[in-house]
Order: sequence, then C-alpha cells, then structure tokens
Amino acid sequence: MSQRLTIHPHQIQGQAVQLTPEQSHYLGRVLRLHAGAEFIAMDGRGHWWRAQLLTPEMAELGELLAVERELPAPIALLMGIPKGDGMDQVVRQATELGVRQIFPLITERTQVQPSPARCQRWQRIATEAAEQSLRQWNPDIFPAQSLATALAQVGGMPKLVCDPEPEVPHLLSVLRPEPEALAVLIGPEGGWSGKEIAWLEGQGAKRVSLGQRVLRTVTAPLAALALVGAQWEQYL
Amino acid sequence: MSQRLTIHPHQIQGQAVQLTPEQSHYLGRVLRLHAGAEFIAMDGRGHWWRAQLLTPEMAELGELLAVERELPAPIALLMGIPKGDGMDQVVRQATELGVRQIFPLITERTQVQPSPARCQRWQRIATEAAEQSLRQWNPDIFPAQSLATALAQVGGMPKLVCDPEPEVPHLLSVLRPEPEALAVLIGPEGGWSGKEIAWLEGQGAKRVSLGQRVLRTVTAPLAALALVGAQWEQYL
Repeated sequence: MSQRLTIHPHQIQGQAVQLTPEQSHYLGRVLRLHAGAEFIAMDGRGHWWRAQLLTPEMAELGELLAVERELPAPIALLMGIPKGDGMDQVVRQATELGVRQIFPLITERTQVQPSPARCQRWQRIATEAAEQSLRQWNPDIFPAQSLATALAQVGGMPKLVCDPEPEVPHLLSVLRPEPEALAVLIGPEGGWSGKEIAWLEGQGAKRVSLGQRVLRTVTAPLAALALVGAQWEQYL
Repeated sequence: MSQRLTIHPHQIQGQAVQLTPEQSHYLGRVLRLHAGAEFIAMDGRGHWWRAQLLTPEMAELGELLAVERELPAPIALLMGIPKGDGMDQVVRQATELGVRQIFPLITERTQVQPSPARCQRWQRIATEAAEQSLRQWNPDIFPAQSLATALAQVGGMPKLVCDPEPEVPHLLSVLRPEPEALAVLIGPEGGWSGKEIAWLEGQGAKRVSLGQRVLRTVTAPLAALALVGAQWEQYL
C-alpha cells in the first residue's frame, strides 16, 4: 500500500472522507483502485492514515500511521526574496529539508516586489515538494511582507540571522541543543543593511555564520536547514 | 585592495605575470587601475597573492595572502547526472559549499548523455562560482564517465554512497572525525540500481543516509557537503 492521496482537513467528518471529483478520478482512473482498496490519506498537517475506498466518492479513515519525516521542532525561514526565480528554488529545497513556514521578506536591499500570484505559486511549489518528499506537513508560505511584520508573526522563538561576516559565531555554536521552535533569517543578494542588523539585534536576534565559505542567498537556507536538522536529530 | 583577478599558473614566471589582452583590459579599463596599483591575483589552485600592476601588460606578485576558505580536506563528488539542467545547479551550489572535484556519472538510471560542450559549460559554471564565492581552488569538473571509471580515478580514499533507504546509518555517524580526502557518491533520479550498490560495497564504499527526509538528487549533494564541512571545521 504505497499509493497516497492528499486530502484537506475540511473533507474529514468523523472517519469519513468526502472525495472531490478530482480525487475520485485520481483514485479510480489513475490509480485504478476499486471499492475496498486501501491507500494512504495525508492531510499535510502532520497526519497519515491507512484509508479504504468505500464508493467512488467516499473513503473511510483507519489507523493513524507512525511516520517520522518531520524535524523534531518547527523551523520558520524568513527569507529576503532573491532575484529572478531564486525563490522558487529556495521554497522547493527548503521544503525538502523540512522547513515548516516561509515568510518572503521585502527588505531594504530586496529588488523584487512579488505579485500575489507569485506568492500563490510559491505555495503550490511547497505543497508539491512536500508530497514528493513524503513530508507530513505542507509548509505554509506567507504573503510577501516587511521584516518587522514577519518578526511580529513569529513571536518569541529564538531568531538566528545569517550574516556572512567572518567574525560571527557559527550557527551550530549558538543553537540550543534541545529542539525548539526556531526562526532562521537570511537576507537577499546584497545582504542585510547595517540598520536592519542593528534593529534585529535589538529584537533579540543573534547573528550567526554558516562557515568559512561565501554562500549565495539561495544556497544559505539549505546549509542552515541541513545543519539544524542534523544537530536536532543527533547525528552530530 | 579588494579588486581581484584570476590568473592561470602558466602566466607566472618567477614573480612576473604576463597579462592577457582581456586581463589588461579588465584591470585598466574596467577597474581603472594604473601602473603601481595593487590588486589580488588568484590562481584557482590554492594561492592568493598581493600583486602590483607594472605596465598595462605585466604585473608582479608580492606576498602570499593567508585565506582560509577551503575545506580542511578535498571532497570529490561523484554525481549521477540529473535530468534537465539539474547538473548546472549542482555544480554551482556544490562549488559554493567547497567541493574540489566533480565526476558527472552515467549510471544505469541516468537518462542523459551529455555532449562535451555541456561538460565544458559545467567547468565554466564551477570557475565562475568559485570566483564569486572567493574560493581559493577552482573545482575540476571531469568528463561524463561510467561509475567504474570514476571510482578508479578517485583511488583509495573513503567512499560514501548516499542511499535514501531508512535503515542505512547517517553520513555523520560513518564519517571519520579527522579531515581526509573523501568521495561522496549520489545517484541520479531513480537512485542506484541494486547491482550498482552491490558492486560499490564490494569496492569498499559505505552506504549512508542524509537524514529522515527524502531529498531530490539535486539537493542531496548540498546537504552532504554542508554536513561534512561543519563536522570537519568542528562546529558540531
């Protein structure tokens, strides 16, 4: 039983799942499942169930499946929007590496003003990437917003600001060992302004380095997520 | 003095550097340097020098500059060529993260047969990315080749084969703590065949995992390089 279907939480009533016409088509015509066949239902909100197709339009949820694909605590990525289609790549790869929320930031040095359609596209990329990576959570991609607005939204969790200055301590030397909700902030091409860094430090954020090498803005979040994940899952 | 010029080792005789017409144009017309001005000369083979422009066609090397951007030991990436332009992305990002050699592999499940022009393009991408990242070494991109040919070229160094099977030990639990030359092998979309894995294990390669999440073939090398770099530089 490796066939999977993503359902929306509002489709569930008790154990019953009312399927959309697209889902019915997918299960019946693409996967060729008949009444009584089993599949995995995923809600993108942390749950996988063993499920059974009852009629072409209705399925029933069975036991919850234990899957451990998620990081032990959620990471929010606050990301200065890169030029070109760099954000597409960041959203896709950060989703593979376990990010839970992405806040696209319009900072002082951001050169892009994305349309609402662009932000919806990022959400679609994240949802697709989460399904391909067998994630249990679909990351939430927020509308493009200012640094101050995004920081207010993430609240009191520890905040690590990646900064390529060489004298800054390494991310892993600052990360607390127990997994806990964490915000990682990465600037656009050109980095943070001095004013932004000062303001972030005033808000309790810590500047951190990602090592000796100079990473482009689209590569930095991947290094950060890979390192935090390995630390939290105690491979280090 | 932050202006930099990449020179080829064969341009150096003693301390003198014979500049090409393009380099003369770049220093004189683009950077607007005059005789007596200083710049940084980089050979892409581990050296940065303080240099002085003597005439429009000639410069002199001064002291060697101590720069520590390179990983403490070289990593060779043996990479099943991904579909589309995925290899461009891998070459660029792996260069940022410190790779020293890349062997593009034609494996059982590789669906691409790259032209020699394509391989030259990868070398150009690596050289540009190394300059942008202020690397001291330009990575060498080898011609596309079979797994057996590439494995013979890397010789006796430890070989880690990334494998998404969940029961495989994590890369960092297998990596020896002291930095030493290392080969990391990553399959194309669809992964390694059972026959390839068996053959690699017969050659002394170890299967390793990159964590709980399912990474695409273009993302896996970045996670591997970020983790090995952090381990070797003792941030963990």
